Amino acid sequence: MKDAVYIIKIGGNIIDDEEKLSSFIKDFAAVPGGKLLVHGGGKLATRLADQLGIPQQLIDGRRVTDAETLKIVTMVYAGYINKNIVARLQANGCNAIGLCGADGNAILAHKRKHPVTDYGFVGDIDAINTGLLQNLLAQQVAIVFAPITHDNNGQLLNTNADTIAQDLAKNLSPLFDVQLIYSFEKSGVLLNADDDNTVIPSINYTAYQQLKAEKKIFAGMIPKLDNAFMALHSGVKKVIIGKAEQLQQLIAGTAGTSLVHE
Amino acid sequence: MKDAVYIIKIGGNIIDDEEKLSSFIKDFAAVPGGKLLVHGGGKLATRLADQLGIPQQLIDGRRVTDAETLKIVTMVYAGYINKNIVARLQANGCNAIGLCGADGNAILAHKRKHPVTDYGFVGDIDAINTGLLQNLLAQQVAIVFAPITHDNNGQLLNTNADTIAQDLAKNLSPLFDVQLIYSFEKSGVLLNADDDNTVIPSINYTAYQQLKAEKKIFAGMIPKLDNAFMALHSGVKKVIIGKAEQLQQLIAGTAGTSLVHE
Repeated sequence: MKDAVYIIKIGGNIIDDEEKLSSFIKDFAAVPGGKLLVHGGGKLATRLADQLGIPQQLIDGRRVTDAETLKIVTMVYAGYINKNIVARLQANGCNAIGLCGADGNAILAHKRKHPVTDYGFVGDIDAINTGLLQNLLAQQVAIVFAPITHDNNGQLLNTNADTIAQDLAKNLSPLFDVQLIYSFEKSGVLLNADDDNTVIPSINYTAYQQLKAEKKIFAGMIPKLDNAFMALHSGVKKVIIGKAEQLQQLIAGTAGTSLVHE
Repeated sequence: MKDAVYIIKIGGNIIDDEEKLSSFIKDFAAVPGGKLLVHGGGKLATRLADQLGIPQQLIDGRRVTDAETLKIVTMVYAGYINKNIVARLQANGCNAIGLCGADGNAILAHKRKHPVTDYGFVGDIDAINTGLLQNLLAQQVAIVFAPITHDNNGQLLNTNADTIAQDLAKNLSPLFDVQLIYSFEKSGVLLNADDDNTVIPSINYTAYQQLKAEKKIFAGMIPKLDNAFMALHSGVKKVIIGKAEQLQQLIAGTAGTSLVHE
């Protein structure tokens, strides 16, 4: 039997909210066994860019990472946010280590090639090197990833945190029983996007396809769910979607939506 | 026989100079065996504080680290500088990992208690936890430390990089044959502070005391040398002082000043 590993992604809305973050850190510290946390950025990077007068360009809702913006996200994500989360996990009795993808060559990526749009220093993941991660997990060290990767030519790259969590989950699945938890602002996958009481507790791919055909899945959730099912089908044991404030219940299976095999 | 480990401290003047940094990174990547790099901050933090309009207070030449300044040094040291050095080491074929003292609880410190002056969020080191470091060194991973520690209560602390290098050297000496290299702007300990050709190649404590009594040691070097001899007397095999640009020669013993046992 393989050891259990939890990979938990928290979004910017948790990082921006001191009360939610504090409660999440306590809960994460208490999760037993191997665990990885992947954090996004929150509003801090945007605020710092504003203060420094660096214009932020969005194309189709995606941030373009020019050289100055890369500097900011490296400072904020891999520096300020990552190290504060680690220090606070230590204070909660959880030995943790904060990494970006360049550390131990953990996440190798290449600068996105897009036929039309230049997104700047944005990384698409090529490989996860699990050796160091396995070793840290064996030492009962929790791993905290900032969403910054590298290209092995000295270039850091801004990389989507959802994708990092998914690729970590895929690559660790041959070695561990991986449960991947995506936390966001809703209580789970909802039948009615405006009603947090309509959480679907458990869903398999067939049911998802059916609900999607019936247009019962909120459009904004579809890319997230497609990715989540892709992770599930690539060997991840379970994918759970729900609120970071309910981490304990998400793990216990009493809150959120579990994506399950057929 | 114990394995060799090099602990190399580079100062801000290297970080601020792209040409020197690039050459240093190549040389560090080529150092054989176990190695740790401790980097200072350079002018980037001061520049960022200026841009953000955060006044920097100096007391007796020491920077006071208020909450806003701590945020800046955490971003710049543990984020921007640390991760860029790691990415560039990877590009030079050197597998490296960037840490601050909170990571793996590697360096535990407390907020400086000073009878008169409040230096703010400045850390004095209490303990080095060598377990994780040993493990990483055993995996042939070079460790890159940013000069930020933590107090195990969730507080990050700005900490002197020279002291971090010294304490790492002391604590790793029972496990490894440690050589500690302090790099700075001069070619070594000079008999004439204005003449880079007057490097003392090798000096023991007796000779140092004699030169000090004869006022032949530049006053600014005395605290550095006192600390370096303290490291030597606490079990470090060798302490070398010299120019970062001459790293290979410092290691080969053909440049810089070697502090040696009697």
